[in-house]
Amino acid sequence: MYDHLLERLVRPAESKILLLVADGLGGLPSTVTGKTELEEAVKPAIDSLARKSALGVTDPIAPGITPGSGPAHLGLFGYDPLRWVIGRGILSALGIGFAVEADDLTARGNYATLDSAGVVTDRRAGRIPTEVNQEISSLLDGMVVGDTRVFVRAEKEHRVAVIFRGKGLSDALTDSDPQAAGQRPREVKPLEPAAQESARMVNAFLVEADKRLKARRPANGILLRGFAKHPSLPPFPSRYGMRACAIASYPMYKGLARLVGMDVIDGLESVEAEVEALAKAWPAYDFFYFHFKKTDSRGEDGDFAGKVKAIEELDRWLPEITKHEPDVVVLTGDHSTPSVLKMHSWHPVPLAIRSRYVIPDGLDFSERSCARGNLGRVRAVEVMPLAMANAGRLEKYGA
Amino acid sequence: MYDHLLERLVRPAESKILLLVADGLGGLPSTVTGKTELEEAVKPAIDSLARKSALGVTDPIAPGITPGSGPAHLGLFGYDPLRWVIGRGILSALGIGFAVEADDLTARGNYATLDSAGVVTDRRAGRIPTEVNQEISSLLDGMVVGDTRVFVRAEKEHRVAVIFRGKGLSDALTDSDPQAAGQRPREVKPLEPAAQESARMVNAFLVEADKRLKARRPANGILLRGFAKHPSLPPFPSRYGMRACAIASYPMYKGLARLVGMDVIDGLESVEAEVEALAKAWPAYDFFYFHFKKTDSRGEDGDFAGKVKAIEELDRWLPEITKHEPDVVVLTGDHSTPSVLKMHSWHPVPLAIRSRYVIPDGLDFSERSCARGNLGRVRAVEVMPLAMANAGRLEKYGA
Repeated sequence: MYDHLLERLVRPAESKILLLVADGLGGLPSTVTGKTELEEAVKPAIDSLARKSALGVTDPIAPGITPGSGPAHLGLFGYDPLRWVIGRGILSALGIGFAVEADDLTARGNYATLDSAGVVTDRRAGRIPTEVNQEISSLLDGMVVGDTRVFVRAEKEHRVAVIFRGKGLSDALTDSDPQAAGQRPREVKPLEPAAQESARMVNAFLVEADKRLKARRPANGILLRGFAKHPSLPPFPSRYGMRACAIASYPMYKGLARLVGMDVIDGLESVEAEVEALAKAWPAYDFFYFHFKKTDSRGEDGDFAGKVKAIEELDRWLPEITKHEPDVVVLTGDHSTPSVLKMHSWHPVPLAIRSRYVIPDGLDFSERSCARGNLGRVRAVEVMPLAMANAGRLEKYGA
Repeated sequence: MYDHLLERLVRPAESKILLLVADGLGGLPSTVTGKTELEEAVKPAIDSLARKSALGVTDPIAPGITPGSGPAHLGLFGYDPLRWVIGRGILSALGIGFAVEADDLTARGNYATLDSAGVVTDRRAGRIPTEVNQEISSLLDGMVVGDTRVFVRAEKEHRVAVIFRGKGLSDALTDSDPQAAGQRPREVKPLEPAAQESARMVNAFLVEADKRLKARRPANGILLRGFAKHPSLPPFPSRYGMRACAIASYPMYKGLARLVGMDVIDGLESVEAEVEALAKAWPAYDFFYFHFKKTDSRGEDGDFAGKVKAIEELDRWLPEITKHEPDVVVLTGDHSTPSVLKMHSWHPVPLAIRSRYVIPDGLDFSERSCARGNLGRVRAVEVMPLAMANAGRLEKYGA
């Protein structure tokens, strides 16, 4: 719905917007104390920001739907994640900073352990070290299958990005990854007639790959999933009329930002580096996407105390992150990752928006307080329009 | 979504609904006290009504989107403002109370200053006084171009409504207004083949108008934009099965009510006159739209104290307005007009619905209390279905 509205209503302004995404921010109560990670954390800076903010919660997709990082971020960037589907392969390729071309076919891969009968015994090949992955990937990288050249690039541990560069390739393909141990890798099948040639080519690659990997147990197989081509999203800078800068350390989030056309600062390996990059980039941009990863990582680990500590670490960085006095600060997460669940979840995500034009709720920052905030419950795709409105960057609709 | 539902579910009843619209009702906190206009105002009658009501907030269009008065009112009347677009020309004509006929073509006009080369130097002709506008408009009003008769009627300052009454006129036309000084007025062009004759006619009008205005510098040119015909909305009375009456003093709101087919009482120049008209009309109608303008006017002026007083004035009238014991009272605004912004805004609008069948929140009436109310955050188009349900005027959907 917003697509056409934004085209008509966006107007230039001098204002700056900071979107601070604490990955996997939302949590659930500890079974011991009954408090969530946000409620346990001692976080004076975050609470001070929250008390001057309008609070609310976001549904990343829709109530009850748990998002992956891709759709969750697209939503926050204002692209309806139900309309714009970003395949897993594209996310992998972008995540390692691979320059995907318009016609490339991409896939996400896992190195896996196969037994002598070819059955998967470990979908993650014992989480081989990244260095081993790099060495193994070099055995496959550059392979040529017919007219198609294949790029195989290591991600972390057992994960790998595979890019097929050929002519007329289709992403209407089934996965080879059976998604569970105890099964054989599956033959890739075309989902439409036009994908037959692509399926044949990918299967030929898989046969040759298994040959080359045979002696490399535990990583003696490769599983592919999420075949995808480039989605060609309307670029963020022209959509919103803002020079946009992404500050993130993990490849996936940099890839997502690149996908929507933000400028991405590379080589940021720590929060400290991110904070310094933000300061340097401040004069040159209107919009800043700042990503903080640890909240999600500790949630995924099921490490309640660790997630509390991650929130407290963010709290210590917050004054540095916000000291440039953006006109609008949005503090939220892309999704919830409750430690008690050890995974992404469907729960709404706390949201704080600070600008001169909000009604402060005067409350601390938590799942419960945000659910009572005056922003109410919004969809993640509504966050950008709210930020834009608060930044004076949207015209009135109609007379 | 509601269009088809309403067609199927509307049923007759004896009940009466009062929709009380305090224009521009929502506000923002004063930078001095931290309280909004509604929170500052002493308003015992409004608060008493609110405490017996279910509270909520409305999004006139969608989060972040600031509405004009046209789409904002359409939403409250239950017409999706993203589906039903009311052109600027129609709003201008309705705003001056012009009786637009089904085939009329309307446009919004500006008197402008042109230099000797015909280039626009001031799009607003130095904001000429309205009396000068009226004098100049009389030079153009009644012009005949081929089969078409042209009505040119002054609005305020440099603004003018232009209505073309002819046969088979099309509104698929580009603007002549270049929207910036330093350019010549543009030739009006057809956006589809069927609009060629209309474009020719309008351009002929513009040539003749410039001749007649030549000596009237600074108002020696006229710029037209927002060509529009009557949108032919499904009429409110048949849509809802209610005899509907509009009580408003400003031409724009009367025009909007007329546009959806309500009976409009003319000649109401004060709130007192509106209150008397309501009493007289009470036996003859099922639905009453009562418009209170001052809250918006003071907000637009940036007059915080004035808006507080306007709310207090509404409070004094409220017992008179509600004394006829409607089965359902809806108290809300069409949009927010915070004094600190001096303009319409995107903020949700406080909403109270009182009937025998609501769960009262027991709270006073303000942006913050309504945000916590049990109606939650709804779209403005959802207000009419809620009012209809509370009035016993909607059947069950499905068995």
